[in-house]
Amino acid sequence: MAQSDMSSPLLDPRELAEPLPLSMGDPVVCILGSGDFSRSLSTRLLCCGCRVVVGSRDPGRLSPGLFPGGVELKTQREALEALSEAGGSLVFMAVYPEHYSALLALRPLLSGKTLVDVSNASALKHEGPSNAQTLAQMFPSSSVVKGFNVVSAWTLLTGSYDSSRQVLVCGDCPSSKLSVLSLARRLGFGAVDVGGLSASRAVEEAPLLLFPSWRGPLLVTTLLFLFFYLYSVLRHVLLPYLDQAENNLHHLPMVTVNKALPAVALVTLALVYMPGLFASVLQLHRGTKYKRFPDWLDHWMCVRKQLGLLSFLCAALHAVYSVCLSIRRASGYMILNAAYRQVKAGVADSWVETQVWRSDLYLSSGILGLGVLCVLALTSLPSVGHALNWREFTFVQSGLGYTALALSVAHVLFFGWDFALHPEAYQYYLPPVFLLSVALPCCVLIGRFLLFLPCCALRLNKIRRGWESERNVRQKKRENGDEFGDV
Amino acid sequence: MAQSDMSSPLLDPRELAEPLPLSMGDPVVCILGSGDFSRSLSTRLLCCGCRVVVGSRDPGRLSPGLFPGGVELKTQREALEALSEAGGSLVFMAVYPEHYSALLALRPLLSGKTLVDVSNASALKHEGPSNAQTLAQMFPSSSVVKGFNVVSAWTLLTGSYDSSRQVLVCGDCPSSKLSVLSLARRLGFGAVDVGGLSASRAVEEAPLLLFPSWRGPLLVTTLLFLFFYLYSVLRHVLLPYLDQAENNLHHLPMVTVNKALPAVALVTLALVYMPGLFASVLQLHRGTKYKRFPDWLDHWMCVRKQLGLLSFLCAALHAVYSVCLSIRRASGYMILNAAYRQVKAGVADSWVETQVWRSDLYLSSGILGLGVLCVLALTSLPSVGHALNWREFTFVQSGLGYTALALSVAHVLFFGWDFALHPEAYQYYLPPVFLLSVALPCCVLIGRFLLFLPCCALRLNKIRRGWESERNVRQKKRENGDEFGDV
Amino acid sequence: MAQSDMSSPLLDPRELAEPLPLSMGDPVVCILGSGDFSRSLSTRLLCCGCRVVVGSRDPGRLSPGLFPGGVELKTQREALEALSEAGGSLVFMAVYPEHYSALLALRPLLSGKTLVDVSNASALKHEGPSNAQTLAQMFPSSSVVKGFNVVSAWTLLTGSYDSSRQVLVCGDCPSSKLSVLSLARRLGFGAVDVGGLSASRAVEEAPLLLFPSWRGPLLVTTLLFLFFYLYSVLRHVLLPYLDQAENNLHHLPMVTVNKALPAVALVTLALVYMPGLFASVLQLHRGTKYKRFPDWLDHWMCVRKQLGLLSFLCAALHAVYSVCLSIRRASGYMILNAAYRQVKAGVADSWVETQVWRSDLYLSSGILGLGVLCVLALTSLPSVGHALNWREFTFVQSGLGYTALALSVAHVLFFGWDFALHPEAYQYYLPPVFLLSVALPCCVLIGRFLLFLPCCALRLNKIRRGWESERNVRQKKRENGDEFGDV
Repeated sequence: MAQSDMSSPLLDPRELAEPLPLSMGDPVVCILGSGDFSRSLSTRLLCCGCRVVVGSRDPGRLSPGLFPGGVELKTQREALEALSEAGGSLVFMAVYPEHYSALLALRPLLSGKTLVDVSNASALKHEGPSNAQTLAQMFPSSSVVKGFNVVSAWTLLTGSYDSSRQVLVCGDCPSSKLSVLSLARRLGFGAVDVGGLSASRAVEEAPLLLFPSWRGPLLVTTLLFLFFYLYSVLRHVLLPYLDQAENNLHHLPMVTVNKALPAVALVTLALVYMPGLFASVLQLHRGTKYKRFPDWLDHWMCVRKQLGLLSFLCAALHAVYSVCLSIRRASGYMILNAAYRQVKAGVADSWVETQVWRSDLYLSSGILGLGVLCVLALTSLPSVGHALNWREFTFVQSGLGYTALALSVAHVLFFGWDFALHPEAYQYYLPPVFLLSVALPCCVLIGRFLLFLPCCALRLNKIRRGWESERNVRQKKRENGDEFGDV
Repeated sequence: MAQSDMSSPLLDPRELAEPLPLSMGDPVVCILGSGDFSRSLSTRLLCCGCRVVVGSRDPGRLSPGLFPGGVELKTQREALEALSEAGGSLVFMAVYPEHYSALLALRPLLSGKTLVDVSNASALKHEGPSNAQTLAQMFPSSSVVKGFNVVSAWTLLTGSYDSSRQVLVCGDCPSSKLSVLSLARRLGFGAVDVGGLSASRAVEEAPLLLFPSWRGPLLVTTLLFLFFYLYSVLRHVLLPYLDQAENNLHHLPMVTVNKALPAVALVTLALVYMPGLFASVLQLHRGTKYKRFPDWLDHWMCVRKQLGLLSFLCAALHAVYSVCLSIRRASGYMILNAAYRQVKAGVADSWVETQVWRSDLYLSSGILGLGVLCVLALTSLPSVGHALNWREFTFVQSGLGYTALALSVAHVLFFGWDFALHPEAYQYYLPPVFLLSVALPCCVLIGRFLLFLPCCALRLNKIRRGWESERNVRQKKRENGDEFGDV
Repeated sequence: MAQSDMSSPLLDPRELAEPLPLSMGDPVVCILGSGDFSRSLSTRLLCCGCRVVVGSRDPGRLSPGLFPGGVELKTQREALEALSEAGGSLVFMAVYPEHYSALLALRPLLSGKTLVDVSNASALKHEGPSNAQTLAQMFPSSSVVKGFNVVSAWTLLTGSYDSSRQVLVCGDCPSSKLSVLSLARRLGFGAVDVGGLSASRAVEEAPLLLFPSWRGPLLVTTLLFLFFYLYSVLRHVLLPYLDQAENNLHHLPMVTVNKALPAVALVTLALVYMPGLFASVLQLHRGTKYKRFPDWLDHWMCVRKQLGLLSFLCAALHAVYSVCLSIRRASGYMILNAAYRQVKAGVADSWVETQVWRSDLYLSSGILGLGVLCVLALTSLPSVGHALNWREFTFVQSGLGYTALALSVAHVLFFGWDFALHPEAYQYYLPPVFLLSVALPCCVLIGRFLLFLPCCALRLNKIRRGWESERNVRQKKRENGDEFGDV
């Protein structure tokens, strides 16, 4: 069989497009508009060996030195003519979309050209056609490609050329789109084809989204913080004041915050590992992995990284607050007063061995837990995470993650010591914050342990390699009953 | 209209170059020279499926195992002949430029080949032609391409293949340059075309630059540190010694450093946000954005990231020093002596509620300010920053940045409390360091607040979308007076 | 000379492959199997503008919504027929390798197609052919390409499109391999050609390796920690107990750990700079750089980064432990008891100036040393390190590295003060831990200083630019005696 028979006709042809003479010079690009974006884009194009013609409505009004030396500054009409003469076809529309109509007079000159719409949406969830679609309607004999809107003028000027910044490109004409993709790569960006012009709304709105994946996790963490903070205020400030007129208001800025922070960190860390448990239980119960998880579980799985980072943030703040509690003025007064009392009582040695062990153990487990969380947080940096293979990633995220959870639970239990067994722990019938916060993590640890038992682990492993339970098989009335595993 | 009409003839043609038979084997590359670079390059080429012929002056003298197994070690003449036989044309010159002349005898064999000059400049601002230009003069019938000098032997051996490391390439022959760009991409580097061979000086000097963008910011920070340090020495060590023979020399290593660090951090952070204010005021005053900023402002804008990171560094060191001040021996002595005095004075409770609030508030605002600065510093990591879109970047850099500045100012003001109003704050007629350091940040915050007032904010927004004031319009004697916005 | 004469025929031809009509639609890809990987891959393919046909054994059994809307779900046979009709040739085998045989019936339909094997090895060092080789034997009339196994279903769904994640591809048919490389780039991955199908075993095993480069360094660090920890236990806990029945068991969790950690950090940091010294001495002694280093030295050089990071980790933990030692309960008791003793002894001022200076100096040098190490650790992040040029990298790794080492040694020496000269430092004839740990770093610093002496530095510099000693030249019986430098 000839090699050409098995060659794929699908991926490269468009990347090789027009078989033009090799001897031609550097590519020519025209930019309409002379604002910041135009300036930065022309500088970058020049750097990468392109010829740049900028078309301004009034090239005379631009202050000298605004554009780099190699750029040809012309009127819009002249610029487009120069582009045509040089055999170029790429025109960047560096103009706000509300001014597209002012370019209608150039329609004959723009005909047959590729217009690159670089505009952003002015607001999210805007009705009607996107800017690029509007442009395409205005210039039906040109080919409109959406792209480059996700890079700012600043990035064009100062960004690196290592394709770490991605440019989303869409358009209806494959060859025009390919020219733009190719130019984006030439400028050192990672270029992604995201489909036809109908995808342009999403591309235009991309730069307007504000941390969409962080909203849920941030809300959860904030609510948890408020709950634990207010609970602590009630238990340690409000009720003691009402009950014994004890003034603990000075607890509010640091002491109470430092009661809420570790509780939030612990509960959030448990929330990172809960959806994985739910997913396993669901697969065990269904006896197949060929069914979608419910939407809430899918969403939850997708925000585990964000939850984990917020947990780490709270844990780190807790560590800083704990250290700072010992350098605040109040702790100085407390030591001095304790020294006064000890001298007055004539106690030469106030050492309590149990307390020493307790504090050493909860500090040790806390430090180690935070250290492991810190390694986890580091691997969530894109450049570090990408260097890990699948097994390393699993080891870090699952192995180290559960280690961090276990160490954090140990930290709390050592901190609590036998306190939970004393009646005075339940002041005003309210359990202490640390007891509340440790409940969920314990459940997660127990759940994980149960799934490690052979009866669960073996069945789960089979399911994950494509096995399905009899019930599933029968239920589907499948003709051939042998199991079949898809990756 | 046919699709081919609107296809861009400008970007791809050179990427498709020579339409050769598909069935040919793997590409052949020749390397002249057998040093570290040659060794690492040949290893990487082998890994990526190329055939490698290394030409050494004396292949016999190389210790066995120096090159990996697949490499063909020959004399230079044989290597070039093998390259020609295999139909290859790429020759890497892995030889120090002072030895190029020793290769003149090979001129006939090198004719028609592409010579890749991988050398670095020996010094900055060297006069005369670059190494690559010298090579091109020596071998006029070969095509010289500069490239690969920015990657070290070490990077070739151990670096990743994810195009995160960029190779700058320049040369006068488009097709030769394209072969080198293409090979660089094949080896997993990000390849950038930076123009003709006249750009080779800059490419050769690139690896010699030592943090050029950090020089100014480092100088500013160092001068600020020296000023605040010496001022503190004068006020707290020198004058008390001259005046009351008080020996405070032990303040020098830590206490005085920890007075200067926060002042430097605060002033530097203010310097990050000042150029943005100046730029806004300038645009407001000029009534247009179509004029260049003065050079000093442009340069200042370009080093904001570096200033911000240095500010964060100082703030982080200040935090560490502050915590360590409480664990140094001197603070132990001070507590013991205070306890002695309290017992002798018979004071059972030395608690001062105001001091407790003061210390808690300045610690809280300091921790939070440092936390926000830490998030800012994280987003300046390339891999994190690239994942942010424009709105997220603005939110972090501007929103969080001003939050950090405000928290830092609050930290200082809480620290100062009502101290600035007492006459003893002006010991020897010198105001305390924290009062000096808080002045500039306060100005920046007030300036930012004024620009938020609708009268400024609305006009500024119009200007940024391309509007120009009447004065500008008239001044330019523009025919058509309707505003026109360029991105 | 015509430009086409010097064009390289070696790199591009395969990237331009089949000159097909431009007007063809989007590429078509078929995926056999309907598991997680298939689902994620089809979603990403759709996003990047491909047409996707999924062939499932029983498309009816898949729950609705499992695949995104645009995917065509068919039986395996129908899917392959649809692929052929559309002129496509790429078939992803998203099926566990143990089920390849179930696809033998499809052999006629798969003939002439490119089969992409995405499977991982089930275990390391498995005998026999790789999964891809097995597949190639089963389907001799298809072209098998190994690839995409290093990206997980998760990465396909959520990973970025910035080519920061690399896909290793190998295969025996160049044009098939090229289609897969090209598709990988289209999906936003960095694609690397690693050779023929014989390389597929290594590609299959890549995702199973668990931090191979960290094993040695981790082992060394762990052994060092155990040694210093047990030595401390012996000296401070066991012997005092046997000798004077002194109960120091409460030292175990924190005090002793904090004696071992700084020692490990210091010795490990010295181990980072030792191989470089050895290499220099070896080059000086041999008088040439054209000989391989012994294997142990090569390996040692390759793990310096890991050793450095582990040293930083230990140093950072040491800092945290040191701070936490002052907030643990035991230190509170010790202060109170000291206050009691001071009051009883009637000492109004316990200040010892020497001790104050000692503690301030060792704290300062420690903080600065850790700060410098922190900058070093930051530059080892891939995204930061890649932004450095050669000179910057050298400055940071060598200049800052030795600064950190010197500061750390100063930290220990200030900590020790004149203690090493007192007989009680050698309790039970055992020197204190810090004296043990400082020996090796001092040797490294002295060695580095000796190599800086002109007699060594000049000769070394000559050698590194290619000069060889007379002895080497004579020994090799080279005809022409002039030196010749290879990069």
